[in-house]
Amino acid sequence: MCGIFAYLNYDVSRDRRYILEVLFNGLRRLEYRGYDSAGISIDSSSAAVHRPSDPPLVFRQEGNIESLVKSVYRDVSATDLNLEESFSIHAGIAHTRWATHGEPAPRNSHPQSSGAGNDFLVVHNGVITNYKVLQESLLRHGYTFESETDTEVIPKLAKFVFDKANEGGDQTVTFCEVVLEVMRHLEGAYALIFKSKHYPNELIACKRGSPLLLGVKEYAQEKSNGTSYNDMKFISKNGHPKELFLSSDAHALVEHTKKVLVIEDSEVVDIKDGGVTIFKFDHGKRDGKSHSIPASVQRALSILEMEAEQISKGKYDHYMQKEIHEQPESLTTTMRGRLIRGGTSKRKSVLLGGLKDHLKTIRRSRRIVFIGCGTSYNAALAARPILEELCGIPVMMEIASDLLDRQAPVYRDDTIIFVSQSGETADTLNALEYTLENGALCVGITNTVGSSIDRNTHCGVHINAGSEIGVASTKAYTSQIVVMAMVALAIGADSISTEQRREGIIESLINLPDKVREVLKLDQEMKDLARSLISEQSLLMFGRGYNYATALEGALKVKEVALMHSEGILAGEMKHGPLALVDENLPIVVIATRDQSFSKQQSVIQQLKARKGRLIVMCSEGDAEAVCGGSCPVIEVPQVVDCLQPVVNIVPLQLLAYHLTVLRGYNVDQPRNLAKSVTTE
Amino acid sequence: MCGIFAYLNYDVSRDRRYILEVLFNGLRRLEYRGYDSAGISIDSSSAAVHRPSDPPLVFRQEGNIESLVKSVYRDVSATDLNLEESFSIHAGIAHTRWATHGEPAPRNSHPQSSGAGNDFLVVHNGVITNYKVLQESLLRHGYTFESETDTEVIPKLAKFVFDKANEGGDQTVTFCEVVLEVMRHLEGAYALIFKSKHYPNELIACKRGSPLLLGVKEYAQEKSNGTSYNDMKFISKNGHPKELFLSSDAHALVEHTKKVLVIEDSEVVDIKDGGVTIFKFDHGKRDGKSHSIPASVQRALSILEMEAEQISKGKYDHYMQKEIHEQPESLTTTMRGRLIRGGTSKRKSVLLGGLKDHLKTIRRSRRIVFIGCGTSYNAALAARPILEELCGIPVMMEIASDLLDRQAPVYRDDTIIFVSQSGETADTLNALEYTLENGALCVGITNTVGSSIDRNTHCGVHINAGSEIGVASTKAYTSQIVVMAMVALAIGADSISTEQRREGIIESLINLPDKVREVLKLDQEMKDLARSLISEQSLLMFGRGYNYATALEGALKVKEVALMHSEGILAGEMKHGPLALVDENLPIVVIATRDQSFSKQQSVIQQLKARKGRLIVMCSEGDAEAVCGGSCPVIEVPQVVDCLQPVVNIVPLQLLAYHLTVLRGYNVDQPRNLAKSVTTE
Repeated sequence: MCGIFAYLNYDVSRDRRYILEVLFNGLRRLEYRGYDSAGISIDSSSAAVHRPSDPPLVFRQEGNIESLVKSVYRDVSATDLNLEESFSIHAGIAHTRWATHGEPAPRNSHPQSSGAGNDFLVVHNGVITNYKVLQESLLRHGYTFESETDTEVIPKLAKFVFDKANEGGDQTVTFCEVVLEVMRHLEGAYALIFKSKHYPNELIACKRGSPLLLGVKEYAQEKSNGTSYNDMKFISKNGHPKELFLSSDAHALVEHTKKVLVIEDSEVVDIKDGGVTIFKFDHGKRDGKSHSIPASVQRALSILEMEAEQISKGKYDHYMQKEIHEQPESLTTTMRGRLIRGGTSKRKSVLLGGLKDHLKTIRRSRRIVFIGCGTSYNAALAARPILEELCGIPVMMEIASDLLDRQAPVYRDDTIIFVSQSGETADTLNALEYTLENGALCVGITNTVGSSIDRNTHCGVHINAGSEIGVASTKAYTSQIVVMAMVALAIGADSISTEQRREGIIESLINLPDKVREVLKLDQEMKDLARSLISEQSLLMFGRGYNYATALEGALKVKEVALMHSEGILAGEMKHGPLALVDENLPIVVIATRDQSFSKQQSVIQQLKARKGRLIVMCSEGDAEAVCGGSCPVIEVPQVVDCLQPVVNIVPLQLLAYHLTVLRGYNVDQPRNLAKSVTTE
Repeated sequence: MCGIFAYLNYDVSRDRRYILEVLFNGLRRLEYRGYDSAGISIDSSSAAVHRPSDPPLVFRQEGNIESLVKSVYRDVSATDLNLEESFSIHAGIAHTRWATHGEPAPRNSHPQSSGAGNDFLVVHNGVITNYKVLQESLLRHGYTFESETDTEVIPKLAKFVFDKANEGGDQTVTFCEVVLEVMRHLEGAYALIFKSKHYPNELIACKRGSPLLLGVKEYAQEKSNGTSYNDMKFISKNGHPKELFLSSDAHALVEHTKKVLVIEDSEVVDIKDGGVTIFKFDHGKRDGKSHSIPASVQRALSILEMEAEQISKGKYDHYMQKEIHEQPESLTTTMRGRLIRGGTSKRKSVLLGGLKDHLKTIRRSRRIVFIGCGTSYNAALAARPILEELCGIPVMMEIASDLLDRQAPVYRDDTIIFVSQSGETADTLNALEYTLENGALCVGITNTVGSSIDRNTHCGVHINAGSEIGVASTKAYTSQIVVMAMVALAIGADSISTEQRREGIIESLINLPDKVREVLKLDQEMKDLARSLISEQSLLMFGRGYNYATALEGALKVKEVALMHSEGILAGEMKHGPLALVDENLPIVVIATRDQSFSKQQSVIQQLKARKGRLIVMCSEGDAEAVCGGSCPVIEVPQVVDCLQPVVNIVPLQLLAYHLTVLRGYNVDQPRNLAKSVTTE
């Protein structure tokens, strides 16, 4: 949530229009992280280096990126700002906001400013938890605040530090020193980019908790030897012409460059004079002398594996739609190279490189605990029964924030599996920190190589589902289940008694993409069903066993994009309360595909019918007559092995949620109040 | 769910009107177990013993008991049946139904009959799982079925057995032999009472799974010695005048007698000629000779501790209302004799007699698992954090049906705590059976002495909340939390580091009834709040930490009685989906009383406000300004120690659900589609 972006061109001539468009495009790629309001800052005039210039311009607008774009061009034409003015060097910053503190409004948008002169400007992703204390202190020093954000204290604190350092003298303090001093006062989670009129053409970025990447596009001085810089290992400090980008994630970088650096917690990046210097901020250290600069660190660039087309909608209207339909492919990628198909002399098995050295330890655990939030939690819930079955170890489910609220007991003989698509989910990250302190073995299951969870767990598995941009997670969900089923197969691989069972699952995994391709053919049918539900207020989904998670996840999809009060309910709990809601009006989806709970679900359907419930039944192909005798709408899905059935079953519900949303006239990719990658608590 | 009742008078002259009223009253007491339809059977004429008589009369009616009463008296006057006709001996049976198989309708009501002549009549609580197989077999023998119930096979099977035994001869087979043979074919859960025109003035009852009690009221032949039979230990077989009652629970007995026998699984009770004989049915045993009768067993009567006024509404309009308001008293009873207040030389501690021999074993457990359904599950969830804190053992939550669906791993070093108000909840009982097989230590927490869970667990604690008749559990919930907090105190009693914490909790327990008395004063305020919500479609409740359970339970109350789609949501999950539903229309209750999660809940409130959410905030006394600055309705509750706060916090939500229901015009004590004590899966 919240996206921050910066663009700095050095010794490459760009006109203002180009710079604006790079910033806007960056925001467009990050828009799924928040779309309550947006803002940018660019320079008002080309400034000579190291000389205070005119204050930077700031544009902020409520609403999504296109609202900002329109308002900027409107303002530009009203003020006769020259779009063709060229800058051989320029630093611009941008922000798209998911409102946490203060309602969506221009005054609460970023960049937040130190005051009238825009001496310091800041874009921020995260939450400053001690902002009230800082605010009070700044108020005492005469600062006034115009926003309700937690962010506004940061630029004001920067100005305060700057002014204090320069009291009665020339400017001697560096930009980096100012930021380091500001960081000493901040508590909470943040990724920040600073721009200042006092330090033209320079940017400082830093982070703690929230993600931040640097992208580097260097123009080789071809005349010398003609080689490109693809073999570059370290960030160059040379004065070659280059473009530099800072971004909350890789989506906004990939169209410019694949050379990136994942900035780590407590690192401070100083971009100046065509060079990049990285310092490690140490909160504890302060060696008497104020504003001391720590030593710089060497960091290697890595190469993004993402392709630019991954982040386009292609032939689809929406990212969510595209991601639902590409699940046969994403599942194939998830399993690539990991399934050993076996043969006459070889066992069927799975190979998870990131896990294999830890399997013995995991098998000896007291318990396995899944930790996740939202859809990732649901995916873990779907995989739980097969993990229990194949490992025989108790598997506990924990919602990350609840574990932290309870400060639940965690021990050294626990294996904790963290599930997060982005690998940056704040609650899950905090839970990771908590369990690391308690000495448990931590396993990460993420979709983002280099993410915080990826880096800070002891081992893990990438789901390799490809970029997921739709705020409502779809393909990541199915890939997560498949990965966790493979984890169960790997942990259980040493048992003879379950060998046949495991082989059956592997067989079914191999065929799974085809089955998902088949179930996607229900698209039109789901659209018709959605049409019949378009004006409902409420929807219930009943599942049990392997498909309890399907009910929760199906309901979550409808809730988050179609804005309909939808609730997933454990079918076994029906009689303990929810049955009271059942009448001839409230639509109820009952998942009753074949597995060992089938007869119990049939009984549930009987009882709902006795109450004249308005049923929609999901069943295995050929079971329509058996489950409801033609008296209600039926969603027939192909059958796969019981523990993988949730992967197939969720697809029609994803389609249902998608069509419901479009038919109800809502924005599928920008669901109200939500944002992807929840990087604040 | 479903209530069965029978009344047999022996050598005590009763006219038909009296007999009808006893049966109706019995059903009225059992009505909370189901009110979809009801039925009774009485004799059409006084019959000499051991001679086939006219077929018994059967009355059945859709709707609640009063509908049946009206329809019976209407039929009586239409047929000129003599209400004053006197019977010195008579056996009547009765049933109130919670529909599982087949919609509520007279044909699906009980007593179910063997056919036109009413040769055999059966009332049934439970579910026969193999009824389809039995039905097919009986269809082949020429039987026809008129209902969609699972029960109808039972009387038809009885007739089939009876007819076969008497082929070409005089009646030699006894009623008991017929029933034993029928039982050999039944699978599932049941409590049954049989009546037959072939065996006038005789009743056979049997049970497996579902509960059944026998009540005995004997008229001493005072002339001999004048002593009453209060010291009677065993069921007498004497021919003294007596009245006998069979009932699904004690509520229908207490107005007649306090001498009861809790019938155990597989027991068959034969009431005949003023005597009661009990046989133990053994499914496996069948010694060549068909219709063999096992040996009779001796069973002692026990004395009910219930008082008749406990099951009256007193000055209240509804049971639910009464039970909400009597919580200060029920909590006092729950804690009576269990809190050691300590002194100069003595530690504050708790004494739980039923648990003390097992505390050492529990402390050495690998994990503690709570198992429950509905409100009982929520109560366990509320107590979980304090149990984790004081015991340092991982505590897992399991919904009973989900554990069974997953066949989750359970081990000998686990302690499993079963929570059920009635002690007869079918899912919880099945889970108990499953965990007993796996060798875990089983602890029962129930409100019903002598219930199945009470009898079949290794140890346990009674909550002593008194009879709870409202279908929506209220006082049992708060007493359950208190008992589980006391269990946590008992398990954790050996730790020095938590001693102060434990003493604080005990102190707070002592004052808890007063705090609940205080919070009950919010009654009118909650009524006003309910009025403002009367026409809403949906309601959300957000809680976290100790009060996650409060949100779930508050929402469950609203859902089950007020028939409003209400959902309890973990506040920490808000950003992961539910926030999409938030707008200026949807009412949201946020629980933000003081504990270590308070600042996080404040942040949640800020974020909901930023989304213009329509908030209702529950906070600690004096916090109204701090939590929402007077901009939204506030429920201020007295503060107690954090882990007991859920006991206080749920009360206003119970009141809210109660008033919402009454204002919306629904029947509080008979919520649609529900029934208390869910004795079928």
